[in-house]
Amino acid sequence: MSTNPEAGFELDPRLAADTIQVADWDLCRVLLMNDAQFPWLVLVPRRRGLAELDDLDPGDRALLLQEIQRAMQTLRNAVAYDKFNVGALGNIVRQLHIHVIARRRTDAAWPGPVWGYGRAVAYAPDARDRLLTALRWAGDG
Amino acid sequence: MSTNPEAGFELDPRLAADTIQVADWDLCRVLLMNDAQFPWLVLVPRRRGLAELDDLDPGDRALLLQEIQRAMQTLRNAVAYDKFNVGALGNIVRQLHIHVIARRRTDAAWPGPVWGYGRAVAYAPDARDRLLTALRWAGDG
Repeated sequence: MSTNPEAGFELDPRLAADTIQVADWDLCRVLLMNDAQFPWLVLVPRRRGLAELDDLDPGDRALLLQEIQRAMQTLRNAVAYDKFNVGALGNIVRQLHIHVIARRRTDAAWPGPVWGYGRAVAYAPDARDRLLTALRWAGDG
Repeated sequence: MSTNPEAGFELDPRLAADTIQVADWDLCRVLLMNDAQFPWLVLVPRRRGLAELDDLDPGDRALLLQEIQRAMQTLRNAVAYDKFNVGALGNIVRQLHIHVIARRRTDAAWPGPVWGYGRAVAYAPDARDRLLTALRWAGDG
């Protein structure tokens, strides 16, 4: 038996297609949703076969909570925002993933949710690279 | 200074108007959204002046995580579901509150989010009372 808790973890192909990898934290792969309309991180615990929050074992659950806070702090340090939206839905992609989104009163979907809001608008390469740099710097704090 | 951590807590009037009280757990007031389209609990930490998840102090944050799991288990014991949606948005009601929703592939909003989905359909009194009884029973487990 493998003792590597990440054994068998594979990022869902749809999440992979819609995002850009920012970092790997202790538990989660940290992804930036490739949608310039919303500063939007997605945390994916690198564990196999998870769908619901309580599929995580208690230690990982506590770690997830810390990493959600770390994602909030990362966004705080990198972008302007009025409110965070944090959610675990999984209606389309079943692999457990947690959205952490910095919402602005002036954003396209406000005050509605971002999920199901029209089409993503991909970042221009320059803007994407600047944001990734800022997020990686902020996330190390 | 008061040592009562609930001092000054008042449920937001909009949350109060849209929901029915199920119970008070250690940290949260547990509410049932009065929308028969979705089995939908709302957890409101009984603390004053919270808006974001990381406004909670660390002990309360751990308790919130436990109560989110308890809400999921409560719904599991009371209704049929395919997937949970858990979210903290607060774009409209700023008081920190966490949605825990039992989603079904056949529900009106699937696979979209429930937030911003049309108008609530209030429970018929009988159905509401049966569900409240089931939730209170299940939530004590």
